Amino acid sequence: MVRIGILTVSDRASRGEYEDLGGPAIEEWLKRVIATEWVSERRLVPDGVESVRHALLDLCDHAAADLILTTGGTGPSPSDRTPEATSSVVAKELPGFGELMRRVSLETVPTAILSRQIAGIRGKTLIINLPGKPRSIEVCLAAVFPAVPYCLDLIGAGRIETHESLVAAFRPSS
Amino acid sequence: MVRIGILTVSDRASRGEYEDLGGPAIEEWLKRVIATEWVSERRLVPDGVESVRHALLDLCDHAAADLILTTGGTGPSPSDRTPEATSSVVAKELPGFGELMRRVSLETVPTAILSRQIAGIRGKTLIINLPGKPRSIEVCLAAVFPAVPYCLDLIGAGRIETHESLVAAFRPSS
Amino acid sequence: MVRIGILTVSDRASRGEYEDLGGPAIEEWLKRVIATEWVSERRLVPDGVESVRHALLDLCDHAAADLILTTGGTGPSPSDRTPEATSSVVAKELPGFGELMRRVSLETVPTAILSRQIAGIRGKTLIINLPGKPRSIEVCLAAVFPAVPYCLDLIGAGRIETHESLVAAFRPSS
Repeated sequence: MVRIGILTVSDRASRGEYEDLGGPAIEEWLKRVIATEWVSERRLVPDGVESVRHALLDLCDHAAADLILTTGGTGPSPSDRTPEATSSVVAKELPGFGELMRRVSLETVPTAILSRQIAGIRGKTLIINLPGKPRSIEVCLAAVFPAVPYCLDLIGAGRIETHESLVAAFRPSS
Repeated sequence: MVRIGILTVSDRASRGEYEDLGGPAIEEWLKRVIATEWVSERRLVPDGVESVRHALLDLCDHAAADLILTTGGTGPSPSDRTPEATSSVVAKELPGFGELMRRVSLETVPTAILSRQIAGIRGKTLIINLPGKPRSIEVCLAAVFPAVPYCLDLIGAGRIETHESLVAAFRPSS
Repeated sequence: MVRIGILTVSDRASRGEYEDLGGPAIEEWLKRVIATEWVSERRLVPDGVESVRHALLDLCDHAAADLILTTGGTGPSPSDRTPEATSSVVAKELPGFGELMRRVSLETVPTAILSRQIAGIRGKTLIINLPGKPRSIEVCLAAVFPAVPYCLDLIGAGRIETHESLVAAFRPSS
């Protein structure tokens, strides 16, 4: 059974001062798009390298997540440290994810260049940083998700299939 | 009062063999575009990690610059070390700036992929590497400057407003 | 005489289980496009940081290659380590090459964001990672090669001229 970690990173949401909108937005999007069986592992932590790093390690190494999607903490503010935490747990970075997410987000908002989102691989887990806002999350997921199922195949993670009419996942024929 | 460091990096210009064209081009552009009060701090140093690093540290930590724009030293030549110097003083890199500047510059010249320009944050200072040629400087500033005022807000630097008809600075309504 | 290293990275091809298609595709493309004299140095090694690193060092430091083009080993699979090997031997990375190659490849296939291709400089040698498949190699070479001759000039490597009708190499007039 494919396991997808959804990690919300937000000081305010983790203190209950603010409703977590990013985590539910990711979960709803995945429910619409993924055609095969999967379960979610939701986490909510405050900003910071240690808090995010600890949650990622738990999701990778104990929950055995195939895919982890984070939301929040990727901007230039001093508290935004999600990319640093992600970088510290992955063996390989995949720069094409951040490049493409910034490029498509730029079509909507010029401040998209402030996002430091990265993606990378730890063992059999693919980790992707998403922005904080639900609308931006959808734009980014729509752009990169066609490459996610094949990436999971390549790293030995679980198999995902998508509803082709919503997201045309691509697997090279070979 | 917002303080903007303008750092020209050039062996020849620093020896007086060549007129500094990049620094004045940046200053003229900012004068046209920024609507609020600001002062410039101009510096001119030879190429090299130590010379550029020293000037950046002085502008950040003593002159308390809100924004530093460098020109020169970002290419593949052995003497071009401005990105290395910048990387050594910032706590966070913002990869979206370099990506966008190379992309828009590519529309003019195929050798834009040789530029290693980066941007990053040291404390309350945003540092952006620009190319050496006045025409390329304008192309890059026009592309990234809409995101600069909001970035300065986020890092606690001074507030900049622009003439909207020239550069539409974007601040998300929150 | 300009010397171009062509390095195929493939476990299966190096064991003879699979025909090397990438190396010959690169060599044929260069034969069509380069108008000046050059010789190729072909190598074939298995995947891995040490195998690729050793071949790159040999091509740079003993064969005195002006340009090295690698093919294979840039994906997310555990065995794909060509970018790590390349990063370990270059003094400077040129991020614009990877960004552009992923962007043009994305027009053909959404999994192009999985490629971790980099380029960089060691002494007087420019090293560029290319994908494994001949069709993708052509797309990437067509995109970045216009900037290669000027880059070689800047690092003191040999001079290349191209057939303008096939690839319009750009050298700024100055």
